[in-house]
Amino acid sequence: MSTEYFRDISKIPYWPSAGAKDVLCFKHYNAGEVLHGRTMEDWLRFSVCYWHSFCGTGADPFGFPTLYRPWNEGGSAMETAKKRLHAAFEFFTKLGVKYYTFHDRDMAPEGSTLEESNCNLDEMTDLALVLQKQTGVKVLWVTCNLFAHPRYMNGASTNPDSHVLAYAGAQVKKGLDVAKKLGAENFVFWGGREGFLSIYNTDVAAELKHMANFFKMAVAYKEKIGLKCQFLIEPKPKEPCKHQYDYDAMSVIGFLKHYGLDQHFKLNIEPNHTTLAGHSYEHDIVMTSVFGMLGSVDSNTGSPDLGWDTDQFPMDIRNTTIVMKTVIEQGGLQPGGLNFDAKVRRESTDLEDLFIAHIAAMDAFARGLRNAVRIIEEGVIDGMLKERYLSFKEGIGQKVDEGKTSLEELEEFIKQNGEPKVTSGKQEKCESVFNHYL
Amino acid sequence: MSTEYFRDISKIPYWPSAGAKDVLCFKHYNAGEVLHGRTMEDWLRFSVCYWHSFCGTGADPFGFPTLYRPWNEGGSAMETAKKRLHAAFEFFTKLGVKYYTFHDRDMAPEGSTLEESNCNLDEMTDLALVLQKQTGVKVLWVTCNLFAHPRYMNGASTNPDSHVLAYAGAQVKKGLDVAKKLGAENFVFWGGREGFLSIYNTDVAAELKHMANFFKMAVAYKEKIGLKCQFLIEPKPKEPCKHQYDYDAMSVIGFLKHYGLDQHFKLNIEPNHTTLAGHSYEHDIVMTSVFGMLGSVDSNTGSPDLGWDTDQFPMDIRNTTIVMKTVIEQGGLQPGGLNFDAKVRRESTDLEDLFIAHIAAMDAFARGLRNAVRIIEEGVIDGMLKERYLSFKEGIGQKVDEGKTSLEELEEFIKQNGEPKVTSGKQEKCESVFNHYL
Amino acid sequence: MSTEYFRDISKIPYWPSAGAKDVLCFKHYNAGEVLHGRTMEDWLRFSVCYWHSFCGTGADPFGFPTLYRPWNEGGSAMETAKKRLHAAFEFFTKLGVKYYTFHDRDMAPEGSTLEESNCNLDEMTDLALVLQKQTGVKVLWVTCNLFAHPRYMNGASTNPDSHVLAYAGAQVKKGLDVAKKLGAENFVFWGGREGFLSIYNTDVAAELKHMANFFKMAVAYKEKIGLKCQFLIEPKPKEPCKHQYDYDAMSVIGFLKHYGLDQHFKLNIEPNHTTLAGHSYEHDIVMTSVFGMLGSVDSNTGSPDLGWDTDQFPMDIRNTTIVMKTVIEQGGLQPGGLNFDAKVRRESTDLEDLFIAHIAAMDAFARGLRNAVRIIEEGVIDGMLKERYLSFKEGIGQKVDEGKTSLEELEEFIKQNGEPKVTSGKQEKCESVFNHYL
Amino acid sequence: MSTEYFRDISKIPYWPSAGAKDVLCFKHYNAGEVLHGRTMEDWLRFSVCYWHSFCGTGADPFGFPTLYRPWNEGGSAMETAKKRLHAAFEFFTKLGVKYYTFHDRDMAPEGSTLEESNCNLDEMTDLALVLQKQTGVKVLWVTCNLFAHPRYMNGASTNPDSHVLAYAGAQVKKGLDVAKKLGAENFVFWGGREGFLSIYNTDVAAELKHMANFFKMAVAYKEKIGLKCQFLIEPKPKEPCKHQYDYDAMSVIGFLKHYGLDQHFKLNIEPNHTTLAGHSYEHDIVMTSVFGMLGSVDSNTGSPDLGWDTDQFPMDIRNTTIVMKTVIEQGGLQPGGLNFDAKVRRESTDLEDLFIAHIAAMDAFARGLRNAVRIIEEGVIDGMLKERYLSFKEGIGQKVDEGKTSLEELEEFIKQNGEPKVTSGKQEKCESVFNHYL
Repeated sequence: MSTEYFRDISKIPYWPSAGAKDVLCFKHYNAGEVLHGRTMEDWLRFSVCYWHSFCGTGADPFGFPTLYRPWNEGGSAMETAKKRLHAAFEFFTKLGVKYYTFHDRDMAPEGSTLEESNCNLDEMTDLALVLQKQTGVKVLWVTCNLFAHPRYMNGASTNPDSHVLAYAGAQVKKGLDVAKKLGAENFVFWGGREGFLSIYNTDVAAELKHMANFFKMAVAYKEKIGLKCQFLIEPKPKEPCKHQYDYDAMSVIGFLKHYGLDQHFKLNIEPNHTTLAGHSYEHDIVMTSVFGMLGSVDSNTGSPDLGWDTDQFPMDIRNTTIVMKTVIEQGGLQPGGLNFDAKVRRESTDLEDLFIAHIAAMDAFARGLRNAVRIIEEGVIDGMLKERYLSFKEGIGQKVDEGKTSLEELEEFIKQNGEPKVTSGKQEKCESVFNHYL
Repeated sequence: MSTEYFRDISKIPYWPSAGAKDVLCFKHYNAGEVLHGRTMEDWLRFSVCYWHSFCGTGADPFGFPTLYRPWNEGGSAMETAKKRLHAAFEFFTKLGVKYYTFHDRDMAPEGSTLEESNCNLDEMTDLALVLQKQTGVKVLWVTCNLFAHPRYMNGASTNPDSHVLAYAGAQVKKGLDVAKKLGAENFVFWGGREGFLSIYNTDVAAELKHMANFFKMAVAYKEKIGLKCQFLIEPKPKEPCKHQYDYDAMSVIGFLKHYGLDQHFKLNIEPNHTTLAGHSYEHDIVMTSVFGMLGSVDSNTGSPDLGWDTDQFPMDIRNTTIVMKTVIEQGGLQPGGLNFDAKVRRESTDLEDLFIAHIAAMDAFARGLRNAVRIIEEGVIDGMLKERYLSFKEGIGQKVDEGKTSLEELEEFIKQNGEPKVTSGKQEKCESVFNHYL
Repeated sequence: MSTEYFRDISKIPYWPSAGAKDVLCFKHYNAGEVLHGRTMEDWLRFSVCYWHSFCGTGADPFGFPTLYRPWNEGGSAMETAKKRLHAAFEFFTKLGVKYYTFHDRDMAPEGSTLEESNCNLDEMTDLALVLQKQTGVKVLWVTCNLFAHPRYMNGASTNPDSHVLAYAGAQVKKGLDVAKKLGAENFVFWGGREGFLSIYNTDVAAELKHMANFFKMAVAYKEKIGLKCQFLIEPKPKEPCKHQYDYDAMSVIGFLKHYGLDQHFKLNIEPNHTTLAGHSYEHDIVMTSVFGMLGSVDSNTGSPDLGWDTDQFPMDIRNTTIVMKTVIEQGGLQPGGLNFDAKVRRESTDLEDLFIAHIAAMDAFARGLRNAVRIIEEGVIDGMLKERYLSFKEGIGQKVDEGKTSLEELEEFIKQNGEPKVTSGKQEKCESVFNHYL
Repeated sequence: MSTEYFRDISKIPYWPSAGAKDVLCFKHYNAGEVLHGRTMEDWLRFSVCYWHSFCGTGADPFGFPTLYRPWNEGGSAMETAKKRLHAAFEFFTKLGVKYYTFHDRDMAPEGSTLEESNCNLDEMTDLALVLQKQTGVKVLWVTCNLFAHPRYMNGASTNPDSHVLAYAGAQVKKGLDVAKKLGAENFVFWGGREGFLSIYNTDVAAELKHMANFFKMAVAYKEKIGLKCQFLIEPKPKEPCKHQYDYDAMSVIGFLKHYGLDQHFKLNIEPNHTTLAGHSYEHDIVMTSVFGMLGSVDSNTGSPDLGWDTDQFPMDIRNTTIVMKTVIEQGGLQPGGLNFDAKVRRESTDLEDLFIAHIAAMDAFARGLRNAVRIIEEGVIDGMLKERYLSFKEGIGQKVDEGKTSLEELEEFIKQNGEPKVTSGKQEKCESVFNHYL
């Protein structure tokens, strides 16, 4: 039996003309090339997501599955799961990506009882461990799917029924065990059903407390089993809920600080969620970085004119440049990375489209990285910023910056110095200089 | 000289037909009527805002002023300011509202120096104090206008130039003195320019630190002068900035907790800002109430299909009902209130439109209050909620609620009890029951 | 064998308290009551939709099915289809609604060939005809599902492959035959995949022409078979497409007029689609009515803070009032009606929730109808409008209205009469008067 | 007296470092360079707008003016107007742009009567004619400001008072005379107040008819005076109105066709308006081009996360590339052009920022043009498209395309040929290939 599902990418004609002058290959990404002191691979830490790329069917709310995947054909659920895992590792290897991410229920089918589900997971992660060792591919993060099963329709840790919360707790316990077994570098919580559909039937105060207590139990168990990975919360404003408690980066930070959980968590930012919350693409990445909470990035994109999560592959060089500039400035994402939480369109039905999409997105980020390195190394934009804030380096400004002055002293300063001068913000100049690097 | 600008409202024909069967009057609001243990006046604590109703001109980004106001005609800036103040108190009194709110620069014109501005403010607040004593009308809150003057174009406490920050500090110092002098019950900070227009020219980390230090100075000065009022921050996501740091309730809560400021501040929620942040009308009111941070409400509305702050008078009974339900459930807004941060449309050019708009909005809130009282006193919705969360009152649910269990115990519970049963969320039933009270 | 799936609604306790003082029943809708010259039933022409209420599973993009429906259990696809149809007619009858709507593929399962699908449809519509005659329930409209099958993923009449377009044509031919057989009063086209996901791979000009030609063929066939029903196009801006050609009412009107199709079509307006297009709830209903193109209404609602189609049951009395006011003013919707293109939430898992949702929505529209009748019969709002536009009833205004003047004459009028006087738009007064009727 | 307001741009240091290695200059735009058969100047037809760049003050709804412009200081209104006009022509010339656009009221101050306003306009356009001849700069388009004066607060051609409509007519008559006098190549109608604030006080049917009759009078007068320019309508969905009748391209096309006006008008598309209507940046440009109605472009941009018109200078190369690809494909914009309806930020207070912004935007469009030419000349994307729609070139597809088939024939085709094959839409590949050209 062959486990070969994918062609050699260097044989896929990329340029559409008959006499193809080009085959599918990276045009910008060069894993081992050193930029600004690290290899590209090390800056970018790409990861393939299991659910979209290996479990996705192309179904949408208005349409049936469109994606034929040979690993999904025939056999029992567990046999299919194994074929899928082999296919995935073949893909990771041929693509040359060193990390993957998955939900517990992506990798192993849910059984009719918790015990059966756990048993399935044990068997599948045994195989995953073998494949990881064979290939050197590692787990960027694991997460538990606490949203797809009907039991979670009204929430997992925020469910009005404590029985459901208990189920979620049991599932997370196993998920943490799996994270340890597979050496996952991070563990993600995405609360897709932790919120409400209607304020009328919801006790928000109770639900928030339960969610906090749930996280505390996860922290306790993590410490008990000596699991070293970073906990991450992934904000999303809405969809499937009308309102999710983890609306955006600042909502999560506020929640974590209120419940004394901020030392135990960082954030996994997905820009498609950020834009759904009404922010610009880079907003939550910048804000979490400023608050020291940027842990990892789900590198995808939406369309600004659409109001739901489209999970498209990121292609905009301007966006990838800003993200990578932030990443470099905070010294990298380790132990996080850039996870492609993105799916090929349901109309992109060729198996090669999986390669095309990943390669195009990796190239887009490689271009972003190169641009960001040039911006940082040339120092023009940074110089403009430094000059702009110069007044906080001495005198009254320095006192403000260090928290050593008072309203009385500020008033006295104005009485001495009068009206400040008008200073142009030079926004168009900054935009133009930024454009120069794209 | 007469300071009478407004007609007696009981003589304004309200119904448009020639043989008017109706004059302008409250149809639902009845100040002294006791509901659920307090007078309507005490639950609602209405306040008229000075800027829109007495300083507004009707100008918009595409049009010149449309509103002719007799108190703005003729005389020096200070003479006009005094006429305006007399007009306002005449309006408060005829309308029967006991509170007003104002920015420092609404009440007294800005001078060419800080000293001159302060001098103007002293003179005007002397007069205000006289009028307050004569009428019994009080200050719900004062705020400093740190956004309209060109010096603040790049921010006040987050300005890249510390000279500007110093000016803002001097202005707030005076504002706090004024708050004390006039017995203001609250003091509001709205950071209309505290954010950014472009991420490219902004040092977010520095600006947030400066903003926090600025608030700390305000707290210190407040304590120094023995000012008793409640400090309030008013979130807004954007406009005039592309992004304001005080994006929404949770952003502000996260910021306050991060900088250790949460004991000193509550929030002033404006629903038109909440909807601009992508939330439902009541969202920030509910969330701040849950976090014990709801201080006051800027009772206005926008249109869900518009992306800017229209500051319309609130007219939707469903919205006013939910707001009042939340207010009653937290035991009232004291020392906050319901401030009409709302403006008549620029096309509503009749002086009587000011009365019509306020009376209609007060009636809308009076209907909301009556509905909310019925909802709470009949207890049907509350009963549905209690039943829904009943499982947290005993057994494993109670342990979760009290933070006394663990993932291991939850797993054990599931091994014993298996799959939870499916329970309908009954959303349509809740909506239908809610409709019953509207 | 019993085909009884639903309880008698008069035995379902509605009020949640133990000693229920109330059972499920209409509180406002009274089918035979005459208002403004017609029965409520005749003004409202309610219709139940087949897909959401009988085929819906509760699956969403993030979750598996939640809704257990006894008629979906056991048996072959055709056996299930028949049980479903019996259940539906039982529901229509117990609810007291006289119309239903369906897609071809809701009623009969798709076969492996067109012939087999058509055969299934013949068998199912034979049964439908029997049940229609037995119950008196009629078809408000039929539509063909040209979006769910994978073949339509890139469009039906706008597919880049003419083979797919041909398939859609064959399917519509059969759909029209079915419409005739069952006496459908209307036939709807909803182009869920008629648009694009990416402008980069789309030839918009070609696709629009093909769509127009497709409609022309449908008109020709309708005339050929003597089908009397009204053709309706249902606009939607996006979802599943990034952009649908039938974006909103005016887009469809522009398209129809450009291709000379406007005599053959009216519009079926769904307010949840209207708000997704950035309009207010009532916008497309008002605009189509003004252009003489309002044919029918999919009476549902979304949430203004959500960017996708939630298809909720309409509960807002303000909205139902405006819709019914427009409907009355144009003399009714005949042969259209109010079709509940709405689904119970996936968390509303009780079978009784189907009744609760429909009854609550029917009551919401009954209240809207009563309000609208009062508004129209009392004439206050209409009087305000008449007075506002009075200047077009004589003199220069009348000439403008009748198209009998010129810029030169207008200039001469201004030279004679100078500046117009300022007239308040009285928006708050109108809103307040409108509130009076809610 | 010197009329020199601006420095020589080649002396403005552009790169911020002290030892400037760079002065302000075009880096991509090269007016005379021939690409795809025309000069860049000829493809791009840049135009400077008068209102933002010469009349703008930097005031916004929350702030006072910030922009000090020397030509606005001192003197009477007419003296200032003349200084402004000299400044503008100095700027056009130094920038090297051959077109400008203006509103009647930008160029000459409104008088206290129509006659006085017209007299001011005569005097100012005499001067403009002299300066046009001296410099060779021409008028891309004129428009009448029918929105800023209070008389137009409730609309101009849709005002409920026919007296106001008459005023607007008189003003347009003069505007058309001015267009002829100055040789304007186009005349624009932007209906900023042609819509409604509230549906409650609006007779939509009457207003639409009056607007149509107004346009008919304008067409008649244009023909009478032998004015050769192209009439253009500029859509905008909202702001200042809650809803504008000219919502987007398709709304305008529907309106024009309904009233038989489509032969006399094309559209002036502003992408910032397009995105406010919920579309992607390029949508209305593509749609009008497909319908043969793309007349001119107001080349600006907004921010996708903001809900109002920010009129920023266009800087995104992806956007400029798509626009120019569409422009080239329709054979150019003549007699239209790319008008910079964009304003420097109110914080960009240096006079040089005007140059920086225009040069950066012109460079952005020059890059877009170069990219578009490469895309078109290399033909890869076009080849992919042609292949995708190939089936419409023969057989049943060709019959569909030519409107020569029927549903019966399509059904027969399917009976013969069965199920179509699945064909990937290759969206990611298209995006990737497009990225290759950026």
